[in-house]
Amino acid sequence: MGNRTVYCGLVAKENLEQTITLQGWVQKRRDLGGVIFIDLRDREGIVQVVFNPEVSQKAWEIADSCRSEYVLEVTGTVRQRTEEAINPNMKTGEFEVMANEITILNTAKTPPFSIEEDTKAGDEIRLKYRYLDLRRANMTENLMLRSKVTQTIRHFLDDHKFLDIETPFLGKSTPEGARDYLVPSRVHPGHFYALPQSPQIFKQLLMNAGFDRYYQIVRCFRDEDLRGDRQPEFTQIDIEASFLTPEDIQTYTEQMLADVMKKTQGIDVTLPFPKMTWDEAMDRFGSDKPDTRFDMELIDLSEVVKDVDFKVFQMALQNGGVVKALNAKGAANNYSRKDMDHLSQYASQFGAKGLAWLKVEEDGLKGPIAKFLTDVSDEIIAKTEAQVGDLIMFGADSFEVVAATLGAIRTRLARELDLIDQTKFNFLWIVDWPQFEYDHEEGRYVSAHHPFTMPKEADIPYLQTDPAKVYAQAYDIVLNGYELGGGSLRIHTRELQEQVLKTLGFSTETMNEQFGFLLEALEYGFPPHGGIALGLDRLVMLLAGEDNIREVIAFPKNGKALDPMSNAPSTVSPLQLYELNIEVTDTEE
Amino acid sequence: MGNRTVYCGLVAKENLEQTITLQGWVQKRRDLGGVIFIDLRDREGIVQVVFNPEVSQKAWEIADSCRSEYVLEVTGTVRQRTEEAINPNMKTGEFEVMANEITILNTAKTPPFSIEEDTKAGDEIRLKYRYLDLRRANMTENLMLRSKVTQTIRHFLDDHKFLDIETPFLGKSTPEGARDYLVPSRVHPGHFYALPQSPQIFKQLLMNAGFDRYYQIVRCFRDEDLRGDRQPEFTQIDIEASFLTPEDIQTYTEQMLADVMKKTQGIDVTLPFPKMTWDEAMDRFGSDKPDTRFDMELIDLSEVVKDVDFKVFQMALQNGGVVKALNAKGAANNYSRKDMDHLSQYASQFGAKGLAWLKVEEDGLKGPIAKFLTDVSDEIIAKTEAQVGDLIMFGADSFEVVAATLGAIRTRLARELDLIDQTKFNFLWIVDWPQFEYDHEEGRYVSAHHPFTMPKEADIPYLQTDPAKVYAQAYDIVLNGYELGGGSLRIHTRELQEQVLKTLGFSTETMNEQFGFLLEALEYGFPPHGGIALGLDRLVMLLAGEDNIREVIAFPKNGKALDPMSNAPSTVSPLQLYELNIEVTDTEE
Repeated sequence: MGNRTVYCGLVAKENLEQTITLQGWVQKRRDLGGVIFIDLRDREGIVQVVFNPEVSQKAWEIADSCRSEYVLEVTGTVRQRTEEAINPNMKTGEFEVMANEITILNTAKTPPFSIEEDTKAGDEIRLKYRYLDLRRANMTENLMLRSKVTQTIRHFLDDHKFLDIETPFLGKSTPEGARDYLVPSRVHPGHFYALPQSPQIFKQLLMNAGFDRYYQIVRCFRDEDLRGDRQPEFTQIDIEASFLTPEDIQTYTEQMLADVMKKTQGIDVTLPFPKMTWDEAMDRFGSDKPDTRFDMELIDLSEVVKDVDFKVFQMALQNGGVVKALNAKGAANNYSRKDMDHLSQYASQFGAKGLAWLKVEEDGLKGPIAKFLTDVSDEIIAKTEAQVGDLIMFGADSFEVVAATLGAIRTRLARELDLIDQTKFNFLWIVDWPQFEYDHEEGRYVSAHHPFTMPKEADIPYLQTDPAKVYAQAYDIVLNGYELGGGSLRIHTRELQEQVLKTLGFSTETMNEQFGFLLEALEYGFPPHGGIALGLDRLVMLLAGEDNIREVIAFPKNGKALDPMSNAPSTVSPLQLYELNIEVTDTEE
Repeated sequence: MGNRTVYCGLVAKENLEQTITLQGWVQKRRDLGGVIFIDLRDREGIVQVVFNPEVSQKAWEIADSCRSEYVLEVTGTVRQRTEEAINPNMKTGEFEVMANEITILNTAKTPPFSIEEDTKAGDEIRLKYRYLDLRRANMTENLMLRSKVTQTIRHFLDDHKFLDIETPFLGKSTPEGARDYLVPSRVHPGHFYALPQSPQIFKQLLMNAGFDRYYQIVRCFRDEDLRGDRQPEFTQIDIEASFLTPEDIQTYTEQMLADVMKKTQGIDVTLPFPKMTWDEAMDRFGSDKPDTRFDMELIDLSEVVKDVDFKVFQMALQNGGVVKALNAKGAANNYSRKDMDHLSQYASQFGAKGLAWLKVEEDGLKGPIAKFLTDVSDEIIAKTEAQVGDLIMFGADSFEVVAATLGAIRTRLARELDLIDQTKFNFLWIVDWPQFEYDHEEGRYVSAHHPFTMPKEADIPYLQTDPAKVYAQAYDIVLNGYELGGGSLRIHTRELQEQVLKTLGFSTETMNEQFGFLLEALEYGFPPHGGIALGLDRLVMLLAGEDNIREVIAFPKNGKALDPMSNAPSTVSPLQLYELNIEVTDTEE
C-alpha cells in the first residue's frame, strides 16, 4: 500500500530495469556537470538517484531546488552503475535510479547537526532533536534491532505457550528494594500509587491463578540516581512458570537467547550455556557477573605466602582473609610506577588498603614487595604461570574485599590492555546465589535477589540461626560481564515466606501490612513456580555493540532524568496540584 | 519440560491408553462406592481422574485427603469412559485418567467463594481475591483470549513491517485532553512528569525520525471519573505510518481485525468494512458509533409535519431544527403509558424536552399527539413503514439534540426489545469527522479527535472564519455500537499546526510552551503521516461477550480506582514525601 514500491535501502538486483517509486529524505545532493545526484535515505538505507535534464527537465529543476533532509517521492528506473561508479561501501552501491518524476513532500531547515553516523553533536543536542538523531543510520539500526529482538522473544514465548498478560502500572509502594516513583491519587487524598519496579508479585499471583506460563515485556521504574546504564524507566522481559525446575527455566531462557542471537546476529551459540556457582565466580573472577571473554583469573596464593614475612599478607590471613593475585600477561611494560600508583588508588575504591605488585624480569620478580617474597618466588611464578614481562598484582584482605578489588582491576586492565575479543558473546549462568547479603549501613540482612526467592531446601534450618549460610535457588544470566537478568524459584507456602521476611527484619505487623495479600494468597493452593527477568535495554545494548543503554532507547532521559526535547518534568498548574491535594514544599533545584 | 505431559483440559483421543502426568487444582472430589473421582483443573480445562484402591491403595489414600483447590501432580493411564459415563458438557468428557501416582504439591484453605463459572461473589470480593477469581474458567479464558488477540495483532503488524518501538511513560503534562496522572520528580523539586494519555506526539516524532511504520501495544492513563468501561489505566494498540492514505491505514486495520476474528472466533468477516460519514451516522442513527446489528433508524419527518398545528414540532422547525421519528416495530404492546413516561424522562437526559409518541392501531394512529397529526397520518405511516402494533417516537429539536435523544432511545429499546443478534460482529468505519466540537462550558472550539488531526484540504480556509465547517481526515472504527478506535492523517507542517492551535484558542506563547518541540520538529522534513489507535480492553471485552472491561483485565481497579487486593493507593512514609518535596494538604476522603 502507498506509492512506494521498494525501500531505498533495499533496491537490489531484482529491481534492475524496473520502474520504482521511492520515498525518503535527501541525505546528500551533488551537481556533477549538470547532472544532479541525490542520495535518498529511508529506514532501510540509501540509494543514489540521478536527475538528468535530458530525461526530465522538470524533475531536474525540482531536484535542483532540494536541500538536505527534504522529503521526496521519486519515480525512476533502476540501472546498473558502471564498473568505476560502483560504491562498495553502500548496500545499494551497484545500482542507481534514473529519475523521471519527483515530488517534494516536505521541505526542511538545515538541521542543527548533520545526519551522519559519526556525529560530533553532544548528548544534549542529540536528545533535544532526538527525531533527527534517530535518523542517523546507527540509531535507526539500533531501534530496528530492538524491535527485532522483542519480536523474536515474543514469537519464541508464544510458541512455547507462555501467555502475554498485562499487570498494573498503578500499584502499591513497598519499602523493599529501590526508591519508588509515586503517583498521587486525586480520589483518595493523601494516598499514592507507586509505579512498578517489577511486576514480581503480580506475576506470582498469575501463577496462583493457574495461568501456568506468563510473560510480559514491560516497563519498570526506579527512582535512583542515574548512571551510564541506568534510566528512570527500563524494560524488562518478564517470565514466570509453574511446575518447572530452575534448569527448565534456564533451558527456555537459553533457547530464547539462542533464537535472538541467530535471528539478529546470525550467530549459532552453543547450548547449554556454561554454569558457575556464585562462590566459584567470586573466587575465580572476583565478580558475580564475570566477563569470560578473557582469562586473567584470580589465583589464590594464601597457602603459598602463609609463612612470608610481609605484614600486609600476614594480617589478612590472620584475620581469616585471603591473598590472591592477578597475572597481567606481558603487561609489565605497559604500567609505570606512576600508573601502578593510580591503579592502587583505584583499588582503594573497593576497600583495599593498597595494591601490591611485582614485575617478572629475566632475573626474577622485581618491585616494591619483591624482597619479602624471595623464598616463595618460584612457587608464585609456578602458580601464576608467570613469564618474563608479566605484571602480577596482589590483593590481601577479606575474601569480599579481595574479590571486589581484583575483580575491578581485572576488568579495567582487560580494557586498557585490549584483551577482549569484541566479536564474542559469552553467556554464563551464575547459580547457587546466597539468599541474603548483610547490609552494613542498615545493620541487617537484605535479599540478594528479593524476598520471594526460594532458599535451598537444605539451608532452611539456618534461616533463623545463620542467614549467611543460606543459599538460594536463584540464578543470574551474564553476558560479557553484564548482568542480563536474574531469576529464581519462588516461595510457595506462607510459613516459609514468613520465615524469610522475619530474617529480613519484618515484624508480623509490617509483613502483614506490606505483603499480607501475598501471604494470604499463599494459603490457597499456590503452585510451585519460578521465573526470570531480563533487562531488554542492556541486552539490545550489548547486541548493538553500544556502551550506553541511551543508544538503544528511542526517547531516553539525560543524566539528570530530564527530557531535553519536551522539557519533562515540568511545573504544573496550581489547579492540578489542588486537585491532587498536594503542595510543593521546595522549588529550588 | 517439567513433569507434565499434557494439560488437563487437552486430554484427547491421541492420549488413549497412554501414561500421562497432569498438574492442576482439585475442582471437585467425590467418593463413589469407595472409588475417588477428582476433577483436576488447569488453564486449559478439566479432566476426571479416578483413584481406585485396587489400582493403588497409597494413591487412593492421598486422594482421599485432598480438598478443593489442592495442587496435585497425578500420573495415570487415559481410558475411554463407558458410554453411560460420558459427559458431553466437558471437553474431555469422553475420557478419564486411572491414577496410580499422586503428589500433593500444595494444600489450600477453603476459598471465600467457589471456583465456578457462575459465581455469586460480589465485585469487591472477586477483586480482593483476584487470583482465585481468575481461576474461574470464564476469567481464565478471557485472559487467554486477550493474550491470543495481542499475539495475533503483533504477528500481523510484524509481518507488515511495522516496528515495535517503545515510548516514554514519564512524559510531560499537557493541558489538552483529559486529566493527567502526575509523578513528582525527586531530582527537580516542584517539577512533575505526567503519565501518557497516549503516545501521540512521540509516535509522530518517530515518523519524523523516518521509522516509516510503528506500532506499540501500550498502557495509557487518564485520571478521570470511572465508568463501567473505564479504568485509570487502559491499553492501546497504537499504529502510525508515513506516506499512506487514510484508506491504506483503514485497509491495514481491517485486515488486522479480520485476522483477529479468524484466529480467535473462527469467523471470516467480509472486507472491506462498510463506511459511513459522520454526518450520515448522526442523521440515520443519532450516534457517531452506531450499532448496525439492528435497524430502527431515525426517519426525518420535518418535511411531512412542516404544516401541522403542533407547537413542539413548529418551534423546532422554526429554530432550524428537525423532527425525526423512530419506529419500534411491533413494540406498541411492550410499552404502557407509564413506560412511555419513563422513556420520556430518559430522553430528557439528552436535552430533549419530552418524547412524543404514537401507537399504530387497526383504526389509525393513537396517542397523546395523534390529534395534531390526522392530516399527515398517511404520510407518517408511509414514511415510517408503520404497521399495526408499531410504536413510533418523535424527537423535535435541534439536529444535535434529536440525534442524541433518539440515538439513545434507539439503543435502549433494542436492548429492552431484544432486537440485537448477539452473534453478529458489525464493524463500521465512521469517516469525515468534524475537526472541532464547540464546547459550551469552555466557550471555545475543542478538537473532536486531537489537535494534530489533519483537516480536509478544501476546508483549511475555514479554520479562522468558520471552524464548524472544517471537516477532518479522521476516521473511527466502530464495533457493535462501541468505538473501538480512531485515527487520522496528522498535520505535517508548522504553519497548519499553528493555525489549528490558534483556532483552539492557543496564543503563540502557550503553543510554544506546550508544543514548541513539535512545532520545531515540523520544520525539519516531517513526512506526511497518519495512524490509528484501538482500545485493546474494549476489543477483547466485545470478543469475550463481556460488558465490562474489568472482566478482561487481570488486575483492574474497582469503581473507586482502588485495588482491594493490594490496597493501592496507600499512604506512604514521611521520608518519601520529604524526598519528593511535596506535602499532603488534605487527607480526608
